[in-house]
Amino acid sequence: VDRDRIEIFSDAVFAVAITLLILDLRVPDTSGSVINGLADRWPTFAAFGISFVIVGCIWISHYRVFRNVREVDTVLLFLNLALLMTVVLVPFGTSLMAAFVTHADMQSHVAAALFSSILLLMGLSFAAVYMRIAQQQATGTEPATQPRSFVATLRFAVGLVVYALCVGLSFVNAVVVMVLIAAVAVYYIVDALASPPQVR
Amino acid sequence: VDRDRIEIFSDAVFAVAITLLILDLRVPDTSGSVINGLADRWPTFAAFGISFVIVGCIWISHYRVFRNVREVDTVLLFLNLALLMTVVLVPFGTSLMAAFVTHADMQSHVAAALFSSILLLMGLSFAAVYMRIAQQQATGTEPATQPRSFVATLRFAVGLVVYALCVGLSFVNAVVVMVLIAAVAVYYIVDALASPPQVR
Amino acid sequence: VDRDRIEIFSDAVFAVAITLLILDLRVPDTSGSVINGLADRWPTFAAFGISFVIVGCIWISHYRVFRNVREVDTVLLFLNLALLMTVVLVPFGTSLMAAFVTHADMQSHVAAALFSSILLLMGLSFAAVYMRIAQQQATGTEPATQPRSFVATLRFAVGLVVYALCVGLSFVNAVVVMVLIAAVAVYYIVDALASPPQVR
Amino acid sequence: VDRDRIEIFSDAVFAVAITLLILDLRVPDTSGSVINGLADRWPTFAAFGISFVIVGCIWISHYRVFRNVREVDTVLLFLNLALLMTVVLVPFGTSLMAAFVTHADMQSHVAAALFSSILLLMGLSFAAVYMRIAQQQATGTEPATQPRSFVATLRFAVGLVVYALCVGLSFVNAVVVMVLIAAVAVYYIVDALASPPQVR
Repeated sequence: VDRDRIEIFSDAVFAVAITLLILDLRVPDTSGSVINGLADRWPTFAAFGISFVIVGCIWISHYRVFRNVREVDTVLLFLNLALLMTVVLVPFGTSLMAAFVTHADMQSHVAAALFSSILLLMGLSFAAVYMRIAQQQATGTEPATQPRSFVATLRFAVGLVVYALCVGLSFVNAVVVMVLIAAVAVYYIVDALASPPQVR
Repeated sequence: VDRDRIEIFSDAVFAVAITLLILDLRVPDTSGSVINGLADRWPTFAAFGISFVIVGCIWISHYRVFRNVREVDTVLLFLNLALLMTVVLVPFGTSLMAAFVTHADMQSHVAAALFSSILLLMGLSFAAVYMRIAQQQATGTEPATQPRSFVATLRFAVGLVVYALCVGLSFVNAVVVMVLIAAVAVYYIVDALASPPQVR
Repeated sequence: VDRDRIEIFSDAVFAVAITLLILDLRVPDTSGSVINGLADRWPTFAAFGISFVIVGCIWISHYRVFRNVREVDTVLLFLNLALLMTVVLVPFGTSLMAAFVTHADMQSHVAAALFSSILLLMGLSFAAVYMRIAQQQATGTEPATQPRSFVATLRFAVGLVVYALCVGLSFVNAVVVMVLIAAVAVYYIVDALASPPQVR
Repeated sequence: VDRDRIEIFSDAVFAVAITLLILDLRVPDTSGSVINGLADRWPTFAAFGISFVIVGCIWISHYRVFRNVREVDTVLLFLNLALLMTVVLVPFGTSLMAAFVTHADMQSHVAAALFSSILLLMGLSFAAVYMRIAQQQATGTEPATQPRSFVATLRFAVGLVVYALCVGLSFVNAVVVMVLIAAVAVYYIVDALASPPQVR
């Protein structure tokens, strides 16, 4: 099948990005206490967990959406590349968020806004990939599948709306933004477990 | 087959995690002696070897268990993602163990307990993945295979029990824990060589 | 098909190289301003974006060219390895460019010339891979496909010519070189969207 | 085919290891001259080139040897894992060699001996993988292929002999060892281009 290689390349990028998240977890200075050293860096661990789940959920969505694709055209290749670029940015956004979330107001606000923006861009890129595939199916290039219901679309859009809200909320409180982003991650797990595969 | 992509993504995560272990092996300061510089860091090399074998063995088990899976459902996707999260944490736990095993009591105890906990979580996640696949086979969703014998289950559980013991033993002596974990790695090699593939 | 593994290995190298670009984006010093810290490093972000698109476009070309390859011979394996070596050098060239583009004349000139040279070598290696495949098809080892038109060859060569020009222009102005390289990246996106797959 | 996943995992490890070689190429201090900064680190670039070719050649040999494998048994899985462990050690050995080759006698000798030993272990692991596959073919588990000629075996063994010599020669002159290892890399390229695939 034609889609093989785009999936292998995407899987490898997802895998490297999700594994690079670990580089942010640093071993504490050996002259001090391990527990204090790790506790002082709690935002790093929280951010690692949140980002791992978010990238994992996007991979699961990618896996589901591409299952029924038969032909990959150039537009889809570039939309997928844009999605992967946002995925690659996630470890950077995660480090930024973790480094500044406990800092003075303005710095934590900017970091949270940048992290939220990367996630928003990732969600929008995924939506673009999804819509391209749906469009190909609608025009008959792809085999028709049961159309994504209005409810399913709404359920996916919840994440995008929360990410967009988070960009604004970042300038109020960065910790609240981190909690909201964690809530979206949990929401996508529950949503994926509750719903049948998206395209099929 | 449906399981292709979950295997490619998992293989890539295993491969990146196992290769990132090397980042902990640092070139000694060029102003001093190479041999002393490397000898001072013996725990890093020991931990690298142990973790490489542990991740390698889990990959071999993953390879065997997924060989007969036909259909991947969402629950299995998330259990596999949880397993991969623990695999990604192994290089961090390895660094922590290597950095503190030769240090003052309390610090080495905490580091050993955290490393043991990551391995215990990895073993438990793998058991959850295995049980989900066995459950699907029992309910007929998957083709029935020869059921895993009680003896085979016991043999796998040995590792889990030792990892759990190690969490406790960490607060007695970290070097003993490192030796025990190395012994489990050797045990899993011998067990894999002595036994037929797990699910088939 | 014989070509499977060369594609998987290449995809993995492309994926790791494109993801390692992110390692250059560093979190600013937490004692200062996030915005200033990031703004001071604007060349890093510009270079990340440009290199990501360039490596992404080369991957898309690789994907297209290899689609109709049936038999991989040793010469093609080594030409492909040479191409991958230049791809692996891109993150280094990108860091070099980003670090020196805003510096004193001579340093920025040398950095730009090295970055341009890596891209030129990548383009030439890709041309060699392409010509080997075309040659195999012409001699009947490979199934004949519609020959690449003179116009298509010219369109691909535009990038090579600009990269070669950039090596020289580097000694005039490094920022101009960076803008030209960004323009080539955009050009290849437009060219890929406007043209049918290359070999087929 | 059963061998699919061992190839994907191996390809990913090879790809990550070959790409991590780039991490040793560091951007020079921005306060000084780019050319001098890079020229001072010439051993890093030489070692990068040599190791890239060596890992690339081992990948090509791996690709050829596994092409006709039909069934992967547990012994082969572990021999392959041992080979991958030596591959993962190559970037570390390369850094060590590059850091010390221009240093005082004793330090350069030790570094060269360690680098040569890693390459020797890699060659021996590959020979073990090869012999296991040949043994399976001889006992009929695998389809019989034209047996590897005595001449071909000799040609492969040349590298092992030179690597073993290099371990000893390291204590005479590290630069000579580096030149010899580079010569072996060139030898394997020429040998691969001159000979038909190994197992088939």
